Amino acid sequence: MEFLPAELIRKKRFGGEHSREELRFLLKHYVADDLPNYQMAAWLMAVCAQGMTPEETSAFTLEMRDSGRVLDLGHLGTTVDKHSTGGLGDKTSLILAPLVAAAGVPVPMMAGRGLGHTGGTLDKLESIPGFDVHVDLEHFQQLLETVGTAIIGQTFEVCPADRKLYALRDVTGTIDSLPLICGSIMSKKLAEGMSALVLDVKFGSGAFMKTQAQAEDLARALMDIGVRNGKRVTAFLTRMDEPLGRFIGNALEVQECLDIMAGKTSNGAPGKTYADTIELTLALAAQMIFMGGKAANTEHGRTLAEKLLANGSALRKFEQICAAQGGRLTEGLPRAERRETVTADRDGFFEYLDLEKLGHAAVFLGAGRKVQSDELDMGAGLEVFCRQSQAVKKGDPIFTLHFSETRGFASALAALNEGFQISTRPLTESPLIAKVLT
Amino acid sequence: MEFLPAELIRKKRFGGEHSREELRFLLKHYVADDLPNYQMAAWLMAVCAQGMTPEETSAFTLEMRDSGRVLDLGHLGTTVDKHSTGGLGDKTSLILAPLVAAAGVPVPMMAGRGLGHTGGTLDKLESIPGFDVHVDLEHFQQLLETVGTAIIGQTFEVCPADRKLYALRDVTGTIDSLPLICGSIMSKKLAEGMSALVLDVKFGSGAFMKTQAQAEDLARALMDIGVRNGKRVTAFLTRMDEPLGRFIGNALEVQECLDIMAGKTSNGAPGKTYADTIELTLALAAQMIFMGGKAANTEHGRTLAEKLLANGSALRKFEQICAAQGGRLTEGLPRAERRETVTADRDGFFEYLDLEKLGHAAVFLGAGRKVQSDELDMGAGLEVFCRQSQAVKKGDPIFTLHFSETRGFASALAALNEGFQISTRPLTESPLIAKVLT
Repeated sequence: MEFLPAELIRKKRFGGEHSREELRFLLKHYVADDLPNYQMAAWLMAVCAQGMTPEETSAFTLEMRDSGRVLDLGHLGTTVDKHSTGGLGDKTSLILAPLVAAAGVPVPMMAGRGLGHTGGTLDKLESIPGFDVHVDLEHFQQLLETVGTAIIGQTFEVCPADRKLYALRDVTGTIDSLPLICGSIMSKKLAEGMSALVLDVKFGSGAFMKTQAQAEDLARALMDIGVRNGKRVTAFLTRMDEPLGRFIGNALEVQECLDIMAGKTSNGAPGKTYADTIELTLALAAQMIFMGGKAANTEHGRTLAEKLLANGSALRKFEQICAAQGGRLTEGLPRAERRETVTADRDGFFEYLDLEKLGHAAVFLGAGRKVQSDELDMGAGLEVFCRQSQAVKKGDPIFTLHFSETRGFASALAALNEGFQISTRPLTESPLIAKVLT
Repeated sequence: MEFLPAELIRKKRFGGEHSREELRFLLKHYVADDLPNYQMAAWLMAVCAQGMTPEETSAFTLEMRDSGRVLDLGHLGTTVDKHSTGGLGDKTSLILAPLVAAAGVPVPMMAGRGLGHTGGTLDKLESIPGFDVHVDLEHFQQLLETVGTAIIGQTFEVCPADRKLYALRDVTGTIDSLPLICGSIMSKKLAEGMSALVLDVKFGSGAFMKTQAQAEDLARALMDIGVRNGKRVTAFLTRMDEPLGRFIGNALEVQECLDIMAGKTSNGAPGKTYADTIELTLALAAQMIFMGGKAANTEHGRTLAEKLLANGSALRKFEQICAAQGGRLTEGLPRAERRETVTADRDGFFEYLDLEKLGHAAVFLGAGRKVQSDELDMGAGLEVFCRQSQAVKKGDPIFTLHFSETRGFASALAALNEGFQISTRPLTESPLIAKVLT
């Protein structure tokens, strides 16, 4: 069946609902370069304005999935993946993959790069000398069978429609649309072959979704697609008003994870500990282990996760992953050449105002990319000393900037100063995990 | 000043108002091929969804105007043009230009091609052997000085931004947007140098605007731009529920105009006369002559127009236009090789249901284009016998199809049959000119 592209654009423009055949037509011809970018761009903007029904979003996701190869991991039993919508200092994937795999649940993890102010799992892993995220699907499947997990980048065979669309959305102001976000996330998850998924949907100043209500809308839309396609999906709504853990930056975050897997709860210095990273990781791991059938409930899952973290099983599995993907942990992680510490200029309560600013500071230091082609400084980043509303005295350290190139330092400092304030009153405390949707 | 295109797209997407600098940036870079079609397409769709403020629409129009050459006709005194939003059988421009020029008011007329189901003034003129609408701006100005009027196509020097945008809108489902329509129409009118403008904004099944309220919105938006830029603008809201006059099709419509300018009120055959074409032409001419300062009021303007039509002055001016632009009227107009007449299959009242269908029938016969590259059959078209609600008897002729290529005949007949019905009751009569906005 054939359609007129301009008519399909008009259909969406005036609020119509596309059939699966119409969506297939658009994506098929777009991937084949038959449908020009300008028609797709107009359609994307029409979707931003009019949205999609749940049925339509699901059909769109499946057509994105089917634009490339789809893995079948049925022979591995229940496989569980995790996806986070991205937050500052969010490094849980690096612990979750080995920890859950150590519990006997295969974790097929196809991860992403840093985006805007948030870091990416692939970038973090690449701070380990030799670590290779470019693993083809045959090798990926092999690693799942032997190691029990692998963390890889989206290969060119997987969801080509998504890759092409994403690049177009980036330059046409059409990133933040619920159905387009859902389609992009879930098409890749469905293609990688997982049978269950735990979502970490973040909200707050450091997340794409600013409010809990928005995060819940996104979570329910993502879950809906999974459930319609026979996958079990659970979603955590978690707060992103302060950085997760102590470190922001690629090697710095890997070090925090290695510390946690070695049983440490802090880096030994005063100030913020690893408590929140550990707490979120254990909660997500408990859910993944339960969904993977290796615990009768999430409480048992959590007990098992705590044990595997404490007895070094997670760390050994992480070392196995590194060995399998070429990472040479023994060579040590890259470190920045310089450190500058910022101190409080008055007594009061430390308050994170806008985590995006902290993220931009990290980017200025070299931990993230301003444009796609930027090279990362793997050792660069931020060290945060304060929890939200922590009491500070004038002169107390509040941030340490890790960097090698001094070029971005002034911009980083300026961005940092816009990201926090020292108040006379503390904020009311809010739990890290606001809600779990099952 | 420089902007990020994706940020400007997002600004409009979320309902922001562009500054004139932002609009200049977008159009300047678009015309220079620096801003790709896909970004412009996303922006156009965002404009469709969010609209523009009156200030913004005016700024957009001026930037479109200033993308090319702008004529200064100040030395000619008050010049008056007419623009119609397009309707089936609407041929008034062909009479208005010579008639108003014969009254001593210079008429600079930059006209368009057929669009969708409606015909275009340029196509109609080209049915006259040798008539050349490709007149450069120097020659155009010269003709205005010597003949007092000229009807030409938009040259490449005029509003290049509009030409490029229009082609993109056509394939991205972004034609029907009030600010985009306004910008496209008024930028060309402002560039051609007229000092006053009479708008004929049509509504009904044969017009882009289906209701009088929509037509009034468009008319007011167009007038607003003119007034903001020192032009006098009057708008007629006219009904397009039945074809204007007796003929639809290029040479057929020219013949109707020649008949009218020769003092005839019908083609001598039974059925629909030229009365409505004459009525609308005189009303528009009266307004144009008044605005051009050659009559104290529109009543006097009408008296003068009637006289100039009756005494052959308009026809002589039309012959002058033809002579000046290469048209050889003496060679006669092209005629279709075949005629087929459709008759009423029952007694009742003839009712036009959907004039777009009649327009499509004319296109199938060769009078219009399905795609830009189609060649026209200048002699092809439709002859209509009935006014709206006219009483008919079974066997009465209701349409004659004029055509040479038989290929499109069946499709034309099918389209035609969807465009009318014969009812048991007449409709209430409505005036042709619903409202005049001054």
